Amino acid sequence: MPAAPSDRAERLAAAVADAGLDALLVGDLVHPGDSNRDAMADICWLTGFTGSSGMALVGPEHRDFVTDFRYADRVRDELPDGFELIQAKRQLVEALSEHLTGRIGFDPRTTSVRELSRIEEALGEGAELVESEALLEPLRRSKDEAEIAAIAASAALTDAVLEELEGFGLAGRSERDVAVWIETRMRELGAEAPSFSPIVASGPNGARPHAEPGEREIQGGELVTIDLGAILDGYCSDCTRTYATGEIDGEALDAYMLVKRAQEAGLDAVRAGANGKAVDAVAREIIDEGGHGDHFGHGLGHGVGIAVHEAPRLSPRSEDDLLVGDVVSVEPGVYVPGDYGIRIEDLVVVTEDGCRNLCSRPKDLLILD
Amino acid sequence: MPAAPSDRAERLAAAVADAGLDALLVGDLVHPGDSNRDAMADICWLTGFTGSSGMALVGPEHRDFVTDFRYADRVRDELPDGFELIQAKRQLVEALSEHLTGRIGFDPRTTSVRELSRIEEALGEGAELVESEALLEPLRRSKDEAEIAAIAASAALTDAVLEELEGFGLAGRSERDVAVWIETRMRELGAEAPSFSPIVASGPNGARPHAEPGEREIQGGELVTIDLGAILDGYCSDCTRTYATGEIDGEALDAYMLVKRAQEAGLDAVRAGANGKAVDAVAREIIDEGGHGDHFGHGLGHGVGIAVHEAPRLSPRSEDDLLVGDVVSVEPGVYVPGDYGIRIEDLVVVTEDGCRNLCSRPKDLLILD
Repeated sequence: MPAAPSDRAERLAAAVADAGLDALLVGDLVHPGDSNRDAMADICWLTGFTGSSGMALVGPEHRDFVTDFRYADRVRDELPDGFELIQAKRQLVEALSEHLTGRIGFDPRTTSVRELSRIEEALGEGAELVESEALLEPLRRSKDEAEIAAIAASAALTDAVLEELEGFGLAGRSERDVAVWIETRMRELGAEAPSFSPIVASGPNGARPHAEPGEREIQGGELVTIDLGAILDGYCSDCTRTYATGEIDGEALDAYMLVKRAQEAGLDAVRAGANGKAVDAVAREIIDEGGHGDHFGHGLGHGVGIAVHEAPRLSPRSEDDLLVGDVVSVEPGVYVPGDYGIRIEDLVVVTEDGCRNLCSRPKDLLILD
Repeated sequence: MPAAPSDRAERLAAAVADAGLDALLVGDLVHPGDSNRDAMADICWLTGFTGSSGMALVGPEHRDFVTDFRYADRVRDELPDGFELIQAKRQLVEALSEHLTGRIGFDPRTTSVRELSRIEEALGEGAELVESEALLEPLRRSKDEAEIAAIAASAALTDAVLEELEGFGLAGRSERDVAVWIETRMRELGAEAPSFSPIVASGPNGARPHAEPGEREIQGGELVTIDLGAILDGYCSDCTRTYATGEIDGEALDAYMLVKRAQEAGLDAVRAGANGKAVDAVAREIIDEGGHGDHFGHGLGHGVGIAVHEAPRLSPRSEDDLLVGDVVSVEPGVYVPGDYGIRIEDLVVVTEDGCRNLCSRPKDLLILD
């Protein structure tokens, strides 16, 4: 992880004060003590802490960080200046109880019903809990230079893996073999982990947007969708290309050209101030007009950062307006059940008047045989 | 995944009826629509579904399964007989609304405050929500033969990786290189994924139970703790050994022998009917008497299955009594901050009169130089 600048806690504390709160609870409030990477993204952004058990309390008068025995030694090197370290003996929130006074915010999206009861038990007298989901997300969403550099490096790594893959044939190998090769190469090139299990979906499996690579042997003359991402320096990438393993027939080729056109139009629509619903609509209308409206059932894109899916969203239901520094995927697809699937995805940084594309592999249909 | 036998839904429905409920909601009720493997473990056990977006409603009159566009095609092949498939257009729980009548249970540990509001909005008139955490867990916890076979195969795979690793030296390599090698070998040997990022913690880093493998070059004459697990056929393994990279001094060697003795005593204490707190205490007393009580800050072990941490627990706070078919880790450790760390871990199946050890690497201190 790039070090978490201590101004993040300051900016969050200011947002907390603006919202009329004394402090905000940050961390995994679902399974505190044994949780997963995505659930820890907020606290990782805030403090640089990369373990699986930690919670912070941040406000004008608060910089408290609590973890358990397993991380207490390591965390001393990681916390930004100003944070007080508390080692919990039992439940993390219990150890914070004397600090939980006044109006305390929590995120209802990442707090379990059980943990809410625990927080209520730990609350000081007269303290009050307030649902507050919009305080940290807007800060974490727009990336600073170090974050963009980490994401760009991670995207360059997936580019390198795809370029290498484009140098040899896919037909005759199993989807799973290709997926294992991708993961191994990502690690050899320095990835800490994949940001999700790579998708290698061939022929009719391509029609399943989240297909799991299986023993199916990739045939000649079909489409293969490859969706991969790495974690490098704590930040994710996410990129998709669809390849052919020989000549493909007219309908699938037309659909490929349609997706490519929709993807490029989507990219062109991205800029600061554009609405996530409007950007989605630009690509979706092209696919609708091409007769494949029913075959594009997911949103156009999503934010990418410490988590591989985060704010903002590009979708028919998005209410997000894009901001400078947002990093989003642009990934339309066409999925024809039982037949074939196509998806093309780039990762871009939103700028004042457009975007900077972090992915560079070509989009003309490559035939790898 | 081994196919989910349809009697799982029947047994769950019976437990639901016994609890006076009409149906239980099962699935990721934190971030439905984009969730992680651990959060999906219940629904994976129940239905065999391995995607990241799905929710089920199970009761005497209910076998409903809802997912979104991305999985609808694939799930048709995966669901056990009797389940009705519903494709959600928006929120998963919205699509279940006409089925949400009577007394509906949900798990407060895996339901977010936000999702609870959504469920409340989707509830039919007169329907009632009931916190119900103890219905599915006892069923999922005790493994059947196919599940034990999958875990045993996964443990054999980690054994094979450790055996290979024991054949060459560790000194001079970075922790990270060794960790990447472990992950790559696990995949080459057929693992779907690691069950967690392997831990390779050398010298003073060994004192951090959840150390992250770094650029530190492993030195001669120190201890190196290696904790690894694979996912094979949907089930996890988890195993730890601590090696030496040359002669080590008396105190660390004594501590190693102490941990080994505590681990073997812990194994001896495991049997059906034994209490998780009592089994923990057997190992903990030995470490206490050896003068390292303050250096063993975590529980003795945890259940392992679809999730790498699940019920039951072996710890000072456990209230679980072990049952035949439980699969648990037994993993005492001694962590001396700034100096060294030791952990030895096996994975065992609880039997009527003891346990069957699924890990087979030797525990005498191996010197790999």
